[in-house]
Amino acid sequence: MTEVSGGSPAGSGGVITLGETMALMRAQTPGPLAHASELGLGIGGAESNVAIALARLGTPVSWFGRVGADSLGELVVRELRAEGLEVRAIRDPAAPTGLMIKERRTQHNQKVWYYRAGSAGSRLDPADVPVEEIAAAALLHVTGITPALSASAADAVDLAVRTARAAGTTVSFDVNYRGALWSPEVASPVLRSLAGSADILFAGDDEAALLVGPAEDPRELAGALAELGPSQVVVKRGGQGCVALVDGVYFEQAAIPVQPVDTVGAGDAFVAGYLAERLRGLTPRECLLTAVRTGAFACLVPGDWEGMPRRSELGLLEATEPVSR
Amino acid sequence: MTEVSGGSPAGSGGVITLGETMALMRAQTPGPLAHASELGLGIGGAESNVAIALARLGTPVSWFGRVGADSLGELVVRELRAEGLEVRAIRDPAAPTGLMIKERRTQHNQKVWYYRAGSAGSRLDPADVPVEEIAAAALLHVTGITPALSASAADAVDLAVRTARAAGTTVSFDVNYRGALWSPEVASPVLRSLAGSADILFAGDDEAALLVGPAEDPRELAGALAELGPSQVVVKRGGQGCVALVDGVYFEQAAIPVQPVDTVGAGDAFVAGYLAERLRGLTPRECLLTAVRTGAFACLVPGDWEGMPRRSELGLLEATEPVSR
Amino acid sequence: MTEVSGGSPAGSGGVITLGETMALMRAQTPGPLAHASELGLGIGGAESNVAIALARLGTPVSWFGRVGADSLGELVVRELRAEGLEVRAIRDPAAPTGLMIKERRTQHNQKVWYYRAGSAGSRLDPADVPVEEIAAAALLHVTGITPALSASAADAVDLAVRTARAAGTTVSFDVNYRGALWSPEVASPVLRSLAGSADILFAGDDEAALLVGPAEDPRELAGALAELGPSQVVVKRGGQGCVALVDGVYFEQAAIPVQPVDTVGAGDAFVAGYLAERLRGLTPRECLLTAVRTGAFACLVPGDWEGMPRRSELGLLEATEPVSR
Amino acid sequence: MTEVSGGSPAGSGGVITLGETMALMRAQTPGPLAHASELGLGIGGAESNVAIALARLGTPVSWFGRVGADSLGELVVRELRAEGLEVRAIRDPAAPTGLMIKERRTQHNQKVWYYRAGSAGSRLDPADVPVEEIAAAALLHVTGITPALSASAADAVDLAVRTARAAGTTVSFDVNYRGALWSPEVASPVLRSLAGSADILFAGDDEAALLVGPAEDPRELAGALAELGPSQVVVKRGGQGCVALVDGVYFEQAAIPVQPVDTVGAGDAFVAGYLAERLRGLTPRECLLTAVRTGAFACLVPGDWEGMPRRSELGLLEATEPVSR
Amino acid sequence: MTEVSGGSPAGSGGVITLGETMALMRAQTPGPLAHASELGLGIGGAESNVAIALARLGTPVSWFGRVGADSLGELVVRELRAEGLEVRAIRDPAAPTGLMIKERRTQHNQKVWYYRAGSAGSRLDPADVPVEEIAAAALLHVTGITPALSASAADAVDLAVRTARAAGTTVSFDVNYRGALWSPEVASPVLRSLAGSADILFAGDDEAALLVGPAEDPRELAGALAELGPSQVVVKRGGQGCVALVDGVYFEQAAIPVQPVDTVGAGDAFVAGYLAERLRGLTPRECLLTAVRTGAFACLVPGDWEGMPRRSELGLLEATEPVSR
Amino acid sequence: MTEVSGGSPAGSGGVITLGETMALMRAQTPGPLAHASELGLGIGGAESNVAIALARLGTPVSWFGRVGADSLGELVVRELRAEGLEVRAIRDPAAPTGLMIKERRTQHNQKVWYYRAGSAGSRLDPADVPVEEIAAAALLHVTGITPALSASAADAVDLAVRTARAAGTTVSFDVNYRGALWSPEVASPVLRSLAGSADILFAGDDEAALLVGPAEDPRELAGALAELGPSQVVVKRGGQGCVALVDGVYFEQAAIPVQPVDTVGAGDAFVAGYLAERLRGLTPRECLLTAVRTGAFACLVPGDWEGMPRRSELGLLEATEPVSR
Repeated sequence: MTEVSGGSPAGSGGVITLGETMALMRAQTPGPLAHASELGLGIGGAESNVAIALARLGTPVSWFGRVGADSLGELVVRELRAEGLEVRAIRDPAAPTGLMIKERRTQHNQKVWYYRAGSAGSRLDPADVPVEEIAAAALLHVTGITPALSASAADAVDLAVRTARAAGTTVSFDVNYRGALWSPEVASPVLRSLAGSADILFAGDDEAALLVGPAEDPRELAGALAELGPSQVVVKRGGQGCVALVDGVYFEQAAIPVQPVDTVGAGDAFVAGYLAERLRGLTPRECLLTAVRTGAFACLVPGDWEGMPRRSELGLLEATEPVSR
Repeated sequence: MTEVSGGSPAGSGGVITLGETMALMRAQTPGPLAHASELGLGIGGAESNVAIALARLGTPVSWFGRVGADSLGELVVRELRAEGLEVRAIRDPAAPTGLMIKERRTQHNQKVWYYRAGSAGSRLDPADVPVEEIAAAALLHVTGITPALSASAADAVDLAVRTARAAGTTVSFDVNYRGALWSPEVASPVLRSLAGSADILFAGDDEAALLVGPAEDPRELAGALAELGPSQVVVKRGGQGCVALVDGVYFEQAAIPVQPVDTVGAGDAFVAGYLAERLRGLTPRECLLTAVRTGAFACLVPGDWEGMPRRSELGLLEATEPVSR
Repeated sequence: MTEVSGGSPAGSGGVITLGETMALMRAQTPGPLAHASELGLGIGGAESNVAIALARLGTPVSWFGRVGADSLGELVVRELRAEGLEVRAIRDPAAPTGLMIKERRTQHNQKVWYYRAGSAGSRLDPADVPVEEIAAAALLHVTGITPALSASAADAVDLAVRTARAAGTTVSFDVNYRGALWSPEVASPVLRSLAGSADILFAGDDEAALLVGPAEDPRELAGALAELGPSQVVVKRGGQGCVALVDGVYFEQAAIPVQPVDTVGAGDAFVAGYLAERLRGLTPRECLLTAVRTGAFACLVPGDWEGMPRRSELGLLEATEPVSR
Repeated sequence: MTEVSGGSPAGSGGVITLGETMALMRAQTPGPLAHASELGLGIGGAESNVAIALARLGTPVSWFGRVGADSLGELVVRELRAEGLEVRAIRDPAAPTGLMIKERRTQHNQKVWYYRAGSAGSRLDPADVPVEEIAAAALLHVTGITPALSASAADAVDLAVRTARAAGTTVSFDVNYRGALWSPEVASPVLRSLAGSADILFAGDDEAALLVGPAEDPRELAGALAELGPSQVVVKRGGQGCVALVDGVYFEQAAIPVQPVDTVGAGDAFVAGYLAERLRGLTPRECLLTAVRTGAFACLVPGDWEGMPRRSELGLLEATEPVSR
Repeated sequence: MTEVSGGSPAGSGGVITLGETMALMRAQTPGPLAHASELGLGIGGAESNVAIALARLGTPVSWFGRVGADSLGELVVRELRAEGLEVRAIRDPAAPTGLMIKERRTQHNQKVWYYRAGSAGSRLDPADVPVEEIAAAALLHVTGITPALSASAADAVDLAVRTARAAGTTVSFDVNYRGALWSPEVASPVLRSLAGSADILFAGDDEAALLVGPAEDPRELAGALAELGPSQVVVKRGGQGCVALVDGVYFEQAAIPVQPVDTVGAGDAFVAGYLAERLRGLTPRECLLTAVRTGAFACLVPGDWEGMPRRSELGLLEATEPVSR
Repeated sequence: MTEVSGGSPAGSGGVITLGETMALMRAQTPGPLAHASELGLGIGGAESNVAIALARLGTPVSWFGRVGADSLGELVVRELRAEGLEVRAIRDPAAPTGLMIKERRTQHNQKVWYYRAGSAGSRLDPADVPVEEIAAAALLHVTGITPALSASAADAVDLAVRTARAAGTTVSFDVNYRGALWSPEVASPVLRSLAGSADILFAGDDEAALLVGPAEDPRELAGALAELGPSQVVVKRGGQGCVALVDGVYFEQAAIPVQPVDTVGAGDAFVAGYLAERLRGLTPRECLLTAVRTGAFACLVPGDWEGMPRRSELGLLEATEPVSR
């Protein structure tokens, strides 16, 4: 078990995230995967997608997680370091790096196959949680994927969140419900509890309904989520924009209309856009404006995170001011 | 659970084999895998490699096994059908198709990473064993990989071998010890027992030593293996050719000197060459001559089985007559 | 001359088709072919496109035809077998496998160059026609391409159709007029005669006009075609849907609006969708609904047949109920 | 210093152009260039783009310029010769062939990086100017890029234009202001002077404003440009078509609506379309109709010039007649 | 029927050649072609291979032949023009451009499949023969392939040779017997007659035996060939070098030992090396030295002609002086 | 001007290096570059090659240099960070990132074309030199390339070396004479002076002769170099191994015999192998053994540095003990 470090330590004022990052193989043209003779090789993971987008926007960010002591683990570490993250990857010799395979059945129907059961990433353990670094950080970002990976991973997330709360580090939580990993019945109490511990909560329409029951209006969903505890709630609605409830004020923000090339990762980009501006002390309106921009960028380039914008590029896409009511 | 069939049924006079066939991703140039941006996509598995080589030599052959109800399972079935095998693939919705990733660290140092723990192929079960077809076939070919996959897979191999013996179907067994799947201590009694039930036994130098202890001379190894039961023993020695003990007579056969492009699959091609000729009633000399030819062909083309020769192509490579002493 | 068989025999209840399948080379980006440095290699043929789509929808199907005793013939056989067809390919040592080259001059202007004059496929002969299998099958599908290939191929189609009619096997005929192969003057009596022998007739707008003269309204065309004999007539109109006249009742079915990636093969997919449902005893409405779905799928993936849907995938695209009037 | 010649000499009735043609490397998928593992290799240059399009339309054309005595210079010469131009490339052993790198940040945001400072092409010299050939030609086409490359290149353009005027050879000038090469302040007097020496002048909206100051209406811009001297002025407005002022008569021509794949080179194609028809003695309406067609073609294929149409292909795209008022 | 011209006219002192040049598709890795998903696209033809090599060595050369009025014909013309040949390609609208497909079954076993029956190139006709240009040229080079393509092509070669002889233009003939095109019985009288009309004759060992019967020693073969008429005979022996008989003096020249990547085209490169030096008035020794150098270069790069050397590159390979005895 | 940092700071005990790292485009098959349609994109630079190899062997290492504020600069920074170096890259907005283009004319003849005149990397300045970090480091490694780039770069190297000597930091210098950058006459006094300031000196045979005049025996060269000042001199002789003179004792070390795929970067790998072991306090014999191993690894993989071994991989290649005499 080796620790690999790199990148600028997030230090105080920075973001810490932890989770699983996998190798990602993707078919490069639409159609049944069984006709592909080559697959593109890359990496992906919800937390590291957010971390990469934050780093590109200028936010210091540290990523913690496990990968195998294998070549795909090397790939994950190389790519995260390349993006300027501080990488604290435990190289676990006892399990392989997880992987995912993406098929585009048609331009708009995507399938994903996971090979992450028993992976190194799923063996995350409370002992791996960097309690000092979390206490010193400005913000901790976690997702609802990690607690689904294993009991020890769930415990690790719990410990991370409790550490942050105790230290006054802001907790950001993206629900990210994954049906392939656990059932709604098992997931919902766990996710609701984490949502309740968060300061900033992100959820899709469906995910919000999983936590607080269905509603006709996304504002209703945001309201119900806020009652769980978080002072900032953002309901992500893809091409329909988002609804936020921040310190009791509702905001509605339209998405930037684009012809999407690959929508995977857009939610993570959105989260990063919001958090980056929040950490710079900007207003909710400004946070949401950047969020829809970063989300749109991620749709315009193939790959889960490769298209995420640097701060200097944000101006390439125009967004409409959010409406507050 | 659906059964897919296809190809010419092996019927009487044909070969039946069963085992796991996986998706295979391979880096296309030598070097650390972490620098690859694309992987070639194909399939591989010791038993199906043998089956493909047999089919190309004109032997009717049926392959039985499990794959996932996923796109990589579709890939496995497509490729095996394409090669003219009778494919009896159980599509298992409860587990993914196994996969393997091949890295060529340098031209001559290859690494393989498996994602087959809990795979569909490893869930092979005695209930899957085609007892009637085995009883009707001329030959059953199994390897020492399958019993390492799971308890149920081990039971399946046992049942297949017992069925064959009871019906008078010839049993061919290739030791194929895989250190990544089990330890020598656990493996050796299982492999020895299967070797003892075989009529035709194939083993590498090291595998022979694992079963009967080390020896100075491959002839000694062949002799000790024959004492376990099989009337035909072939010790495969790669570039050094092979030593066989058939019905009490020793044969030595030199390999065909080639500049190998990819040696993986050469042992499987060798086995198929031997078995194809045996089933046509040829002499041991003729079996060995074809075996070294098919083995050499497999080395000359990238991929585990793609280079295996059709009967009409055998003449492209010249081999030296074996020596019998 | 060798016969290669494979796949599930269509048997009773299944479909038999015969025709020419060629190797297909295609430029992979739009632009003049002379700037391409690589061509994608695959296969294509109207009858085998239909056969593949039928097999994916669960219909047992057998394909009969000739290919060369060359590597491209091997390619054709491999791919058809891979798709689970019963393949009865005569390997003709006296002529090469036909081939076609596809250029996308712009995204929406495609050119095709054929190398099929004197090809193995064009040497189809009445002696090749599987009269027993046709008599035992539920349906025979032929196209207007085969009679244009050679006199012997025309005789073979005639024999096949006569055999089917005599045995009570349903005859499906897709006009598929190819201007590169013969002139309208030569083609129209031959095609009209075959249309008259069919039970189910498929034609494009232009093809219908070639057989029965121009009309203002596709319903008129369908009516005139039905007078030639077939009890089921479907006029395929691409993005404008189709008009059918089944047992005296007119149906109109809208196409599913999609952004097409490659429309070649969509007509074949449409035919397969209709036939598959017909053989399951579904109503004309249901047949047409599936037909527009399979047609739409074929447009969404590059390649003539690679995008054709499995039955389980049909639900990914929504279609509007046909109108009957 | 070697002169390489090839292609049909433009002779009398033909076009002569001179300028810099560079190697062009381009990322083949959208996204940050730093994620590309391969770049497509080709060539590009405004004057040779025009020359290629002219040659495809059947106009004899000669290209003069310098490239390095290196492999990329060989590439430039090969491609220009391949297109049937008469190529008079001076191979300059003292400087490398210029190159440009194109990144598609998103589908619609393109960045270009130049490596042309001190390049062979920028070392064009008055001594290189083919005064006799210019005097014998029907038309000389130059752009505002060449004078920005170096003092000697500016002198060469001057000499070429003076030679043409003296000999009665028509002078065509495309403003082509490149902000990466010089500032508006330095550029505008040079460009204005060249515009004043031209018979046919092409300018974009912005370029027109750079020469004659801003205006509300493109007709105003055309009028002001015509006052500089040229009897034919065409203001190119991309997807909005163009406005022309020819011998005192205004024309407005709509663009052909297409979904552009790559708009680079469309302006050059437009110029070639206009000039080719002009040299055939066609009317302004006919010149503009062909111009919008060739411009549209160039947008439909990746690459700066690869998609330019042959005369026989023009009919694949329909254009609306221009309006004259 | 259009004539396309380009390149430097060979004029007096130059070389004229005529024959068929085809599109060439090749598998890019060794193995059965049926496993390839992409083919490389290029061109090839014995006469144009020689012409390209001559042009790279600085000899003015004109190529005459027919190609189809299709995109592959465009490809042939583009590539030949790119290499600086004067290209006189008749675009024949009545027949397609011929093509060949190359498979590397193993690194050292290559198969070629031709699609040239009835091709445009095979329709070469005496009316196409450029009698004036041949009379003005220094040398005419023809091969034994062209007379095998069709009766009119055979007549065209005859006319070309007769024209050259009448005008005092040197005739070079490379036997190039192709078993796929005609039988030894039909070919040998035709080839013998052409050999008898040549001044410079090139033949492989086997080809020599086809013309003059077998012999033990290549010097014997050279002697017997010289008796047919040519004053210069070169027997090409691949890796074993060559034997020449020039004006009654024998020369033996060793090949340059290289690890060949692709030997196709090496014979054509050899011929060009010899002819280029001959036309510069060099001695037989010097001609042979360059010939083995150019032959070796062609082996070191994939493709039939791509690796042919420029004069400035000859020094990269060292050759041993020939022995004269 | 932005500073980007990342990776583990070399700190005390680590290595600091500075120089230019460029984007590197390479043809992927042998042959003239003008036939390539794609180039592989990567990075390269002598100092960063050494740094990467050191990092893979476990030595903390920092790289300092300038790159452009462009996408290729981003590429350089990404790759160096990915390898775990501490990267201190000044992003220079005033100049582009340098680039090099590699052509393999044949398997064994490589050409390199540079676009680095005026590049960001060549603008390295004494103000960029990290004097504190050099003083704190264990070793400074510089090459003879940097002083050839510009006067300011030469001054920067001087300052770095003087700083190291003053602080007692070991100075390692690899002569790396580049004929494309400066003449022997200009270079030799500069290189000799730097050699005289070094503690550890690496030179090829020719480079040694450039500094101290020719000699018959590499030991003589080593001796003469040592007289310039360095206590450790290693004469690198490629496939012939090396000769070292360390603290007055001569060592000869044979190279590991391999079939090289790409020898570029082997010298840098050799240097890193030596330095890594030296910094661990190993004996000269051990340093040389690792050096020939790392050098051999670099030859076995395409790319300048991609094949460099991790410490755990060293055992894959066996070396013979050096001889000391």
